[in-house]
Amino acid sequence: MTGIQGVDHIAVAVADLDAATALWRDRFGLEMGPREKIPDQGVEVQVMFAGPVRIELMRPLGPDSPVARFLEKKGPGIHHIALAVDDCGAAREAALADGGRPAGEGPVPGAGGTKVAFLHPASACGVLVEWVERTPEDS
Amino acid sequence: MTGIQGVDHIAVAVADLDAATALWRDRFGLEMGPREKIPDQGVEVQVMFAGPVRIELMRPLGPDSPVARFLEKKGPGIHHIALAVDDCGAAREAALADGGRPAGEGPVPGAGGTKVAFLHPASACGVLVEWVERTPEDS
Repeated sequence: MTGIQGVDHIAVAVADLDAATALWRDRFGLEMGPREKIPDQGVEVQVMFAGPVRIELMRPLGPDSPVARFLEKKGPGIHHIALAVDDCGAAREAALADGGRPAGEGPVPGAGGTKVAFLHPASACGVLVEWVERTPEDS
Repeated sequence: MTGIQGVDHIAVAVADLDAATALWRDRFGLEMGPREKIPDQGVEVQVMFAGPVRIELMRPLGPDSPVARFLEKKGPGIHHIALAVDDCGAAREAALADGGRPAGEGPVPGAGGTKVAFLHPASACGVLVEWVERTPEDS
């Protein structure tokens, strides 16, 4: 398998998006990016930048959001990491061929025109892993 | 505060380092890096590369290792993330001045000649954050 370009983002589940945004800006000096609601995933996301890597702070949009359940069970913390790939579908297929268990269907549309897919934490040392394929216009 | 260069690494706590290494190599296509024992931190680390970002797989060297306690409490998963900075001491001081709670002393020597320090998860949305300062020879 080829085509891993790097880490696209690290997603952190939080309850208070404004407080978390101020914290990562002021305490760590991250650069501010856009804020976006993604109803399909039940979250509002504040993008921050640590150099070229995004730190995505996510709050649940409602009690049925997977991120709401994550917060209830585990409290705030890292929700998933995303690998930047040049072909999301190929990356997912290769992982499934290696015995990996998918988390949901994929590739599906992600934020900002990306294609995304997820692998289940049971298939990656307890880590929920996303693949993100960006077109040049997205990045 | 300035001087965030990017994400240096994402550290994943695992029980079986050989199995985890094979998984992240074969299932995700990461590149192999060096393996190193760090007795001061009670871990053996396998460095993998997702483009320029390191994924550091860590196994405890013994039952008293903080990573052994992490595994016992939470199971395998992401243990911490590390921000690449040009001045580890200045980054730590700025976070403390902003009300952050340190995790241990710092800067202290890290793997491969780096300087490192940590901020407590209670001060960063449940995320244990490390700062890593590399000299050009380290990178």
